[in-house]
Amino acid sequence: MNEILKRSLLYDFYGELLTEHQKEIYEQYILDDFSLSEIAKDAGISRQGVHDLIKRCNKSLQEYEDKLKLVERFLSIKEKVHLIEVNAEEFDGQDIDGFLHNIKKLSNEIIEEL
Amino acid sequence: MNEILKRSLLYDFYGELLTEHQKEIYEQYILDDFSLSEIAKDAGISRQGVHDLIKRCNKSLQEYEDKLKLVERFLSIKEKVHLIEVNAEEFDGQDIDGFLHNIKKLSNEIIEEL
Repeated sequence: MNEILKRSLLYDFYGELLTEHQKEIYEQYILDDFSLSEIAKDAGISRQGVHDLIKRCNKSLQEYEDKLKLVERFLSIKEKVHLIEVNAEEFDGQDIDGFLHNIKKLSNEIIEEL
Repeated sequence: MNEILKRSLLYDFYGELLTEHQKEIYEQYILDDFSLSEIAKDAGISRQGVHDLIKRCNKSLQEYEDKLKLVERFLSIKEKVHLIEVNAEEFDGQDIDGFLHNIKKLSNEIIEEL
């Protein structure tokens, strides 16, 4: 997974645990793709200040994930739900028992993880 | 949902954000079902001390959920995955198109929520 996508996911899950000020700056960087200089100018702080704040946010968000592993859980579930969808989309009417078995197995595995 | 189940779910999701000491006491109360007096005696602190600690843990865990709503998200997903499972279990071989439509609709909704 690329760095930006990973950061966005972590922010989606744990962003509300940052302060309002951190969220405001971090969103400009991670979601709106502004440069450090643009954010610094807009917020009236130094470029280095923005850099440090973003680094602290990255660290906090990663620490939450290291402890809670909720993004990891969600991604694993998402993968399995996607498999159910693909199974249903590609089902050609043959081997209905095998198909039902797969759907039940996958949904069972997801429920175990939840 | 009953209070104990709700507390266990919150603890399952956010427990790792409590301190080691809090986790130790809180688990005895919420998972092992010990009384305040039993926990107090075992930990060598007052019954009131245990009571206050548990109250603080309840409050912290609830605050995390108020901010992140991850238990709420998980429960909604769980309900839909359960529906997929029930659909697959009760499918009687009739109306395969309707059945596939339901499975695809539900898995799509889940992926949107993830």
